[in-house]
Amino acid sequence: MKSKALEKHFEWKGKYETKIKCEIETEEDLALAYTPGVADACMAIYENKDLSYELTGRANNVAVITDGTAILGLGNIGPEAGMPVMEGKCALFKKYGNVDAIALCLKTTDTEEIIKTIKYLEGSFGGINLEDISAPRCFEIEKRLKEELDIPVFHDDQHGTAIVVGAALINALKLVKKDINKIKGVINGAGAAGISIAKFLLKLGVKDITMVDRCGILNRLNTYDNKAFNEIAAITNNKCVDGNLHDAIKGADFFVGVSGPNLLFKEDIKNMNKDAIVFAMANPIPEISYADAKAAGAKIVGTGSSKNPNQINNALVFPGLFRGALDAKASDVNDCMMIAASYAIASMIKDEDLSDENIMPKVINKKAHEEVAKAVYKAAFESKVARSKK
Amino acid sequence: MKSKALEKHFEWKGKYETKIKCEIETEEDLALAYTPGVADACMAIYENKDLSYELTGRANNVAVITDGTAILGLGNIGPEAGMPVMEGKCALFKKYGNVDAIALCLKTTDTEEIIKTIKYLEGSFGGINLEDISAPRCFEIEKRLKEELDIPVFHDDQHGTAIVVGAALINALKLVKKDINKIKGVINGAGAAGISIAKFLLKLGVKDITMVDRCGILNRLNTYDNKAFNEIAAITNNKCVDGNLHDAIKGADFFVGVSGPNLLFKEDIKNMNKDAIVFAMANPIPEISYADAKAAGAKIVGTGSSKNPNQINNALVFPGLFRGALDAKASDVNDCMMIAASYAIASMIKDEDLSDENIMPKVINKKAHEEVAKAVYKAAFESKVARSKK
Repeated sequence: MKSKALEKHFEWKGKYETKIKCEIETEEDLALAYTPGVADACMAIYENKDLSYELTGRANNVAVITDGTAILGLGNIGPEAGMPVMEGKCALFKKYGNVDAIALCLKTTDTEEIIKTIKYLEGSFGGINLEDISAPRCFEIEKRLKEELDIPVFHDDQHGTAIVVGAALINALKLVKKDINKIKGVINGAGAAGISIAKFLLKLGVKDITMVDRCGILNRLNTYDNKAFNEIAAITNNKCVDGNLHDAIKGADFFVGVSGPNLLFKEDIKNMNKDAIVFAMANPIPEISYADAKAAGAKIVGTGSSKNPNQINNALVFPGLFRGALDAKASDVNDCMMIAASYAIASMIKDEDLSDENIMPKVINKKAHEEVAKAVYKAAFESKVARSKK
Repeated sequence: MKSKALEKHFEWKGKYETKIKCEIETEEDLALAYTPGVADACMAIYENKDLSYELTGRANNVAVITDGTAILGLGNIGPEAGMPVMEGKCALFKKYGNVDAIALCLKTTDTEEIIKTIKYLEGSFGGINLEDISAPRCFEIEKRLKEELDIPVFHDDQHGTAIVVGAALINALKLVKKDINKIKGVINGAGAAGISIAKFLLKLGVKDITMVDRCGILNRLNTYDNKAFNEIAAITNNKCVDGNLHDAIKGADFFVGVSGPNLLFKEDIKNMNKDAIVFAMANPIPEISYADAKAAGAKIVGTGSSKNPNQINNALVFPGLFRGALDAKASDVNDCMMIAASYAIASMIKDEDLSDENIMPKVINKKAHEEVAKAVYKAAFESKVARSKK
């Protein structure tokens, strides 16, 4: 039997279409929008490339690009099968950011080929949203593109997740009245998301983070084949502790899971510090269920699902973040802009509304996206990557 | 002072945008269009790749791709400056074919890199419209992509022009009551368009064509550095005549110009056969003006401009051609489909309406595009490249 979601996809046949913005009714219209009039716009851009932001849709265009290797929790299912997710993101981009996003699924998984292809496409877009590209290739691809392109490049699985977890932690800490500099945290899953979350929380002020992966606690005294493990080990686990997830979580103030289903036991939650914060974000089955974590005594629990309170969803980030970056004609998405986005999301829940069951705004809350856009726009100017006039 | 066309481009800021096709209002909507529901669509495609035509927008998507090397008559002005033309085509695709076309301007002019990039993009589109890529690279790029991709690939500058010239010739011949097998024609300009027109007119039944370029009449007894010249010389100018344009045109029944401004004199028109047909299509200034050609005695004159009667415009072709090809889920655009398109355009002018000043339908005539789509759809089935069920 077909699921309702599958039925809907058969009905929609794609989640976005194109819509004409110019008039094409008369011969004169044609002569303005197409030949011969269009030549004037071409030559104006030829003489001043920056005018491509004024005379074409580029200023509002983002490419959502994947190679199909890490689609949701489904793994490497290829470019065609990754398309429904990319189209879904494009629809959210339009709905919540009024960004014209185009889904491009590449038929190559070669790092250099992906970088080259995206470089060739630069002139057609105002920004690049990388999506569901598997680690560790995603790190190299994003790093190189950020260096080599003059438009914002953002790998949502890394930074979108980090920004939204940051927002959740900011609000949770208000409730438990703990100082971000003094808390101890554990992140389980040292993939693209986990590593980016760790780096981002360090930037937000967390000092004590332990990263755990299948091989146990990451420790700078070890050497890993995975280059990203060595890099993150060097800036986490300052006491160079060894052990597994169950060891790591003892005495922790917060847990972030971006790993797999049912890896945490109630016992683990009980071993955490008082007023424990648990963000169990594995999808579709979290590291520990919302109910079990609460029953074991966690004070604040968040998951990736909208069925429980406190959904932690990176769809809160990308529409507003790109809206702000595009409006600023930013050349980059930098830390300053990402931190601003995180605080903007957190600020959507007023102190008087904040509770253990209400730390995050909903994705369908348009105001949240507008606030992210405003904050990112401002931060782009403050951090001097904006190119538009304020 | 800004031209009206330039002003309009500043106002539009792009000629198309995206429009959401799915519902995104409630949390449940989100769960169907995005996570977790979208996973069902992904897995369905993973198990059967053909379902990407049912579950994503692919069945209605065409990429309009250029490298910016031969934009209109402006030459190699680069990808950013080529964008207004590509966006204009995308708007026409939507308006007259209801095709969702996306403009992609590539920052490379390397033949192999362009081929590779487009191959990587195959899974995201139902068809590829190549545009304004300079000769001779455009021949190799189109040939290879047609061989290596399973979706229709169509270089509009070549075949769109050929199809529309074919339609004009079919109708002109009805008026002058000459048999297509017995006429003599001259094509001036052996670039992408000229060569494709020659090949296409041979397929329509013309036997005697003389190709002329800057070097004079192309003759198979010569060897040219340009590979495409040798190929077309081998199937034209059967009597192996030498000379220039003015020699070639003597006694010709029709002339097609895809070359440059003011290359023909009134004397040349006078030297043509009785009831001469002159399609002087150089843009913006034709090989001879409409008025001069008529004054010199040409019976039927067509140009690329809408300011004169008989505009010969390839925008009559691509929206309907891709509509038909997409509806048939064609794996290719073949001769059969192109010939069908040509006759469909010609058939838009009923015998009783046909006159020296009225051989072509207008681009803004929606019915013309519908007829092209129907004819191409039918031809795709007849020539066995259709994959959809009829």
